[in-house]
Amino acid sequence: MGRPKQERAVQTREAILRAAAEVFDEYGYAGASINRILERAGATAGAMYFHFKSKEDLARAVMNAQPETIVPLLESEGLQRMVDITMIWSFQLQRDPLLRAGVRLATEQTGLQDATSYVEWAQIMRDCLNVAREKGELQAGVDPHEMAEFAVEACTGMQIYSSVVSGRTDLPERAVRMWRLLLPGIAVPAVVARTEVSPARVPAALRAEPGPAA
Amino acid sequence: MGRPKQERAVQTREAILRAAAEVFDEYGYAGASINRILERAGATAGAMYFHFKSKEDLARAVMNAQPETIVPLLESEGLQRMVDITMIWSFQLQRDPLLRAGVRLATEQTGLQDATSYVEWAQIMRDCLNVAREKGELQAGVDPHEMAEFAVEACTGMQIYSSVVSGRTDLPERAVRMWRLLLPGIAVPAVVARTEVSPARVPAALRAEPGPAA
Repeated sequence: MGRPKQERAVQTREAILRAAAEVFDEYGYAGASINRILERAGATAGAMYFHFKSKEDLARAVMNAQPETIVPLLESEGLQRMVDITMIWSFQLQRDPLLRAGVRLATEQTGLQDATSYVEWAQIMRDCLNVAREKGELQAGVDPHEMAEFAVEACTGMQIYSSVVSGRTDLPERAVRMWRLLLPGIAVPAVVARTEVSPARVPAALRAEPGPAA
Repeated sequence: MGRPKQERAVQTREAILRAAAEVFDEYGYAGASINRILERAGATAGAMYFHFKSKEDLARAVMNAQPETIVPLLESEGLQRMVDITMIWSFQLQRDPLLRAGVRLATEQTGLQDATSYVEWAQIMRDCLNVAREKGELQAGVDPHEMAEFAVEACTGMQIYSSVVSGRTDLPERAVRMWRLLLPGIAVPAVVARTEVSPARVPAALRAEPGPAA
């Protein structure tokens, strides 16, 4: 009773969100028009305004959907989980328009000035680090909150640097390098030794070249 | 003979560059018009085109002037110099329009896609790290080139995070925190102990609140 209708609404919302992500990824916030998004989604203005109040509202939804593209993929815990999140992110950012657009909107000075996606990423990292602390993985004096924010800062800058010099193709290498530099300063020696930092942590399907119609 | 004329040309170039920086800082690349820049500089179009070929050329000059705002201020060496550069940068970015605009242009996806400023910052960091290595300050296995690029990546993301959550007022604290997390993993223990990581490394005049007409 009403089920198919509800499912259809969820699908429409998702289609509009994905189309918006593609358009924001290509044109940035200022260059993206509602018409272009509707055309891409094959949706009506009525359908869009049912789910999103405005272009700004849509941009916020895209920006704040970033973690969904990564986190459900993971099963490890503690520091290994934190490493795995960044490794998967370094590949997904090359292929997932929702993540790419979220990152673009969050780093541009568009006037949206919304800290939500930064705070959410930091919370995800902090959860990993709290587990790491309980498991005795962290060196004394490493504050999970501070380290979590620093990891988000470093990843934010890393993807920009990688984007400018390589179109993001060297992002996985840069993520590996970050952990080689950071782990010895934050983890106890046994954990530095056993933590796997490698693109091999990422499922093979995600490491493959993105298809022509991503 | 011709000296005053040459000096005047240097001053005009500097005035146009500063005005352009202020306008790019406020409006971004797309929103900055040549007319607004000329008005701000009190210069003619002829004077501008004598020094800069186009708005793009002007934007590149602003972007690539970033290190000049920091480096001439410093006298320390090795890791201490690297720390000092980031500490001064964390204050200057709150007050120097040339640096602010350079950073904004370099992080926006404006289509300029110019890696020069990233590469130059990394070179400045690498010079510090090469000295640090010669002085025996670095742990074995820390590659100056990799660490230099990572420091630039981390600073890039740090200023964006700080900008979104605090309008950059907490940037000096974040810089201190970065070094507390990074130094133990890259420097030998005696150097970790003696390296000063503090806003007190920055000349008091630069730490003061920027004046009303910066």
